[in-house]
Amino acid sequence: MVLLSAGPGDLDLLTLKAVKALAAADVLLLDELVDPQIVTLAPYARVVRVGKRAGCRSTPQAFICRLMRRYALQGLNVVRVKGGDALMFGRAGEEIAFLRAADVGVRIVNGVSAAFAAAAALGVSLTHREHCHGVTFVTAHTHDHGEPDWAALARSGTTLAIYMGMSRLASLAAGLLPHLRADTPVAIVQGASRGDERRELTTLQALRDAPPVFDARQPGVVLVGPALAEALHVAGHVQPAAGAMAVCG
Amino acid sequence: MVLLSAGPGDLDLLTLKAVKALAAADVLLLDELVDPQIVTLAPYARVVRVGKRAGCRSTPQAFICRLMRRYALQGLNVVRVKGGDALMFGRAGEEIAFLRAADVGVRIVNGVSAAFAAAAALGVSLTHREHCHGVTFVTAHTHDHGEPDWAALARSGTTLAIYMGMSRLASLAAGLLPHLRADTPVAIVQGASRGDERRELTTLQALRDAPPVFDARQPGVVLVGPALAEALHVAGHVQPAAGAMAVCG
Repeated sequence: MVLLSAGPGDLDLLTLKAVKALAAADVLLLDELVDPQIVTLAPYARVVRVGKRAGCRSTPQAFICRLMRRYALQGLNVVRVKGGDALMFGRAGEEIAFLRAADVGVRIVNGVSAAFAAAAALGVSLTHREHCHGVTFVTAHTHDHGEPDWAALARSGTTLAIYMGMSRLASLAAGLLPHLRADTPVAIVQGASRGDERRELTTLQALRDAPPVFDARQPGVVLVGPALAEALHVAGHVQPAAGAMAVCG
Repeated sequence: MVLLSAGPGDLDLLTLKAVKALAAADVLLLDELVDPQIVTLAPYARVVRVGKRAGCRSTPQAFICRLMRRYALQGLNVVRVKGGDALMFGRAGEEIAFLRAADVGVRIVNGVSAAFAAAAALGVSLTHREHCHGVTFVTAHTHDHGEPDWAALARSGTTLAIYMGMSRLASLAAGLLPHLRADTPVAIVQGASRGDERRELTTLQALRDAPPVFDARQPGVVLVGPALAEALHVAGHVQPAAGAMAVCG
């Protein structure tokens, strides 16, 4: 079977590999966050919706796993569709281990994760050699409902791309403020690459004191770090990122 | 003009959006690490190679920027092609800032970064909710040729995806060993998704003591963290990742 990444939303961000896999699908197991129009790319597939959405009733993971195994063992070409890239935050690890134990071969098709689409929407790089040497993708809360180690994340010197944090923007900022400058640029992008895309540019301090109101049921990404300064500059908030033109200027 | 992400290698991992942009290109500015066959997708484009490759002579960044500006101001449809996703480690920040200052509009087309393709090749997730709550993409050395803060990166509790480190595998391991368990799983994937893809599975200790020999001129990714345990398990190195089947089992 195929574990397929649907990307951030815009179906034009599907890879050619994904389009080919969809065209050959007998069964489509579809996450709720994936554009329903994707089914038009799988004309021969029976579609089963197994979505999960923040704050809503969701299909139990164990049920999804058994469903994949059952269809696959029937010899059907099963395509499990996940938003973003299936190998980040998608619980793909559990599904792959389960299918492997059931002797079901799994082929993985990569995709574009939301934070990359968010950076494209903002017209900025996720990393800027003058400011940071990387980017960290984290979820706003850990498996055991604890908080990530904000101090260590801040000290890593990387841009932070925080997923699943739309319902707790102020507390994210509060967690980071003791470890980063209050004027650290923050960009919040919901529905990156989709028609209803929405962007907010702010700073850590302002995010804690007056967080913008978002529909927390819609997925979004919070980007934090000096690499975002260019986005605020373009929006007229701040001066250009120091050194941004260092070489190209 | 268009800043276009070519993905990790396999041209089937180009997005539909990228394919459309290539088909409409008048000029293609091509990185050396991108599959030369990509030009077949841009039949009307004049191709200019502006590659950079580890350890080899490279086109000066400032020259690339001026070239983009000149062609764009001539009204040509310029497509700047970068490997992976253009917004990570590609110096896109400088190029975007430069073009913006020259009043050249830039459209960004995302792609699949190498670490995602590496995880797909290994059949593992980059994140596993039982083990970590994220993944950090870093370069092996910082802009000023210093080392990343390995202690902070280790403490972040995220899987590490280390780029541009193929020439210094042992020193990467030496930098991380004081901060992570010696038996922390490591996967090295060179040419992920390409015909000449090569994978090595090891541990931090073994990587420092007996690093496998790679052609350092070819790009590769080093993945470090418990989330990789499943890959070693499949390869017969270790027991399954604890909790991997927790829910799906």
